[in-house]
Amino acid sequence: MRSTMVEKVDVAVIGGGPAGMTAASRIKRLKPELRVAVFERSGYVSYAPCGLPYYLGGLVDSLEHLVHYPVRVFTEERGIEVYTRTEVVEVGDGYLRARDASGERTYEWGKLLIATGARPKVPPVEGVDLEGVFTLRVLEDGEKARRYLEKATRVAVVGGGYIGLEVAENLVRAGKTVLLFEVLDHVFPAVDPDMALLVEKELARNGVELHLGEGLKGIHGRDRVESLETTKGEYKVDAVFIATGVAPETRLAEKLGVKKGSTGALSVDKSMRTNVDDVYAAGDVAEALNLVTGKNDWFPLAPVANKMGYVAGAAMAGLKAEFPGAVGTSITKVFGLEVGRAGLTTARAQQEGFDPVSVMINANSKASYYPGSSAMSVKLIADRRTGQLLGGQIIGGDGVLARLNSLAVLLSFRARVEDAFFSDLGYAPPFSPVWDPIVTAARVLLGKIREA
Amino acid sequence: MRSTMVEKVDVAVIGGGPAGMTAASRIKRLKPELRVAVFERSGYVSYAPCGLPYYLGGLVDSLEHLVHYPVRVFTEERGIEVYTRTEVVEVGDGYLRARDASGERTYEWGKLLIATGARPKVPPVEGVDLEGVFTLRVLEDGEKARRYLEKATRVAVVGGGYIGLEVAENLVRAGKTVLLFEVLDHVFPAVDPDMALLVEKELARNGVELHLGEGLKGIHGRDRVESLETTKGEYKVDAVFIATGVAPETRLAEKLGVKKGSTGALSVDKSMRTNVDDVYAAGDVAEALNLVTGKNDWFPLAPVANKMGYVAGAAMAGLKAEFPGAVGTSITKVFGLEVGRAGLTTARAQQEGFDPVSVMINANSKASYYPGSSAMSVKLIADRRTGQLLGGQIIGGDGVLARLNSLAVLLSFRARVEDAFFSDLGYAPPFSPVWDPIVTAARVLLGKIREA
Repeated sequence: MRSTMVEKVDVAVIGGGPAGMTAASRIKRLKPELRVAVFERSGYVSYAPCGLPYYLGGLVDSLEHLVHYPVRVFTEERGIEVYTRTEVVEVGDGYLRARDASGERTYEWGKLLIATGARPKVPPVEGVDLEGVFTLRVLEDGEKARRYLEKATRVAVVGGGYIGLEVAENLVRAGKTVLLFEVLDHVFPAVDPDMALLVEKELARNGVELHLGEGLKGIHGRDRVESLETTKGEYKVDAVFIATGVAPETRLAEKLGVKKGSTGALSVDKSMRTNVDDVYAAGDVAEALNLVTGKNDWFPLAPVANKMGYVAGAAMAGLKAEFPGAVGTSITKVFGLEVGRAGLTTARAQQEGFDPVSVMINANSKASYYPGSSAMSVKLIADRRTGQLLGGQIIGGDGVLARLNSLAVLLSFRARVEDAFFSDLGYAPPFSPVWDPIVTAARVLLGKIREA
Repeated sequence: MRSTMVEKVDVAVIGGGPAGMTAASRIKRLKPELRVAVFERSGYVSYAPCGLPYYLGGLVDSLEHLVHYPVRVFTEERGIEVYTRTEVVEVGDGYLRARDASGERTYEWGKLLIATGARPKVPPVEGVDLEGVFTLRVLEDGEKARRYLEKATRVAVVGGGYIGLEVAENLVRAGKTVLLFEVLDHVFPAVDPDMALLVEKELARNGVELHLGEGLKGIHGRDRVESLETTKGEYKVDAVFIATGVAPETRLAEKLGVKKGSTGALSVDKSMRTNVDDVYAAGDVAEALNLVTGKNDWFPLAPVANKMGYVAGAAMAGLKAEFPGAVGTSITKVFGLEVGRAGLTTARAQQEGFDPVSVMINANSKASYYPGSSAMSVKLIADRRTGQLLGGQIIGGDGVLARLNSLAVLLSFRARVEDAFFSDLGYAPPFSPVWDPIVTAARVLLGKIREA
């Protein structure tokens, strides 16, 4: 019976992550009379998968803490229909079919938001389906992994990006022996190799067994993980975390005829409209403008997703709203180091046709005489011809976000190195040297550009 | 004999603080052949008076730590002539007379930089010259005060600005009973009253006896301070710190015919030239453009002074160099609170003819589920008509500089509230909620502007 019923909603949102829930909330706020329904595969909406590594390490003791708002806030307070544990299995012109434990149902929609996010990329090798192999996407993944880890002592992490690094740190925190495998020569390709080196030292200092330049060949075991095979050897491990990047979850959208951009994510205009009438996309599934290059790019990061959702919601409610773009700002903690980056790396700047020139300086996080000051390394990259600031990377014991955020705003205004030098950043002995590390780096970079 | 000798220098710099030493270093770097002489009244150059409160509190155990570079770095490594404990007693067209312990000497200069800084304003009341009354300007002031404090138990601080607050905190740290007097109704007029209230609570929580709306009438004692009299009463105290603001030290410059601007500081162009040929001014003695108002303003803060010195040095060496201006960014620590501000307060915005609209939001410094997250209050002020961001104030237990620096760069680009909302600031659970407090405040402010 139930599967033959057809419900009509004004707006259907596929995906209850940051973009989807922000958009749905915005629409109901602006147009309370609209019927808005959100379909989410997992058991949670408005969740913070970024917190999962800390749940594994025990810093966060309950998954409930990773939920920004429970479902009832959206349903009762905001009047949004939320269908969790519900998978959209088909989507077509003006309708979709959703399946939950009780069966299937068809919904007709006036407008559709695709907020399906990104999914972990899993290398196509033998054994990735074995028990004891994990990826972290939805909260349930964290729950399963944490339970499994109780009986694991040696754990492999495959992939040295954000998630791999955060998982490695937290596994060490949980008392595991951790082997980190990265197919490239350095961890963390979001920063230049000279900066990645600092991260690698910190990993080693904290007991992570680092395997660089080793690709995953397979995972072996009878019923569950027993070993991991790479291009260089085989390692006995009890569990494996795969963190080899993410890909936009575009499959449903493609069936609707939504076009992808050059990054592989969905192509949208500034109001989050796709090429298909009344179909919008926001969050990790969609592209956004890179304010440094002026070209479309892909930023699968929660703050960007939230803002895209906010714009999509406003636009779907009939307001003029535009998402200007992003600069790829991100930060992570790797044991005692804070690692931030924004804009382009040197390699990426070259690919984009810039003529990158860079400096790396060492500074103190606070006035050198103030207790608790720690060492900080700042790398700034600019275009030699125009002096445009292209990107930067900051690694230190504390105070990294303060420098990163100033850099991020500078980049979004397409600032020149000179603008960075003249930035009027906050100073007092407990917070900064009188020449802020960003200002110092800009001063040195200015000199290098002028001499050239 | 010695007083009749005349020395010739290419550049004379009056004042060995941040602006003077930065300028002198820059000139010698660009034109090593020039003879550059710096005249400094105190025994130190390149010192950090901002560190003096922490020396009083014992966090910094030696005054030497407050010297960025000892004199010999400037003389031996950089080839600058440095005359400490030397006061310039007269300055005229192309010459100056300097006096030290051994007598007076005349110097002819080709170019002159006035970097005389600012001096503490001392209320013209009885007893300010008594033993046990202190201001903090040069390192020697800190030395005398610290020694005197050894036998003091009750100490009054007059003035609730940066220095007053920092001194109060450090006197508590040193075990003193501290009475803080502010003539206005709130401490810290650099922030709006609602934000100042948070600071006042923190002072009270830490045992500072707060006296608001009490003006200083006199200081009494036979040989040394015994009591302090205000408009409301008399208080027994052993020592008094006067921190009722600073004024630009323009006296020498005025004798040369250098014009002052409306702020009372010296008027300069973007290359730090005064109205008198070959005479430049930089640092706390000079005005700078306020990038928010577009008018000249006065920013007696070390980072601004340093950059003005850098520009003055380059300009005096014959390079094209311009100081774009500042936005009045500053930060201080008041016990467990970090207090930052940039741009205009609400009151100042009104004075400047804006139509200010503001919001104050409460947020977490980190993801709410991450250990160690603390409460943060963010106030943003914008112009209702244009949406231009005018200023902001941030108070919290940690992470204030990260928000302040993004605000500072936004202000310097004359950003609108929308730009602040779309700032691509760094996020990870150990550093920030997914909606950065600045972004959240901008979102709420946007709503308020639109509704209006």
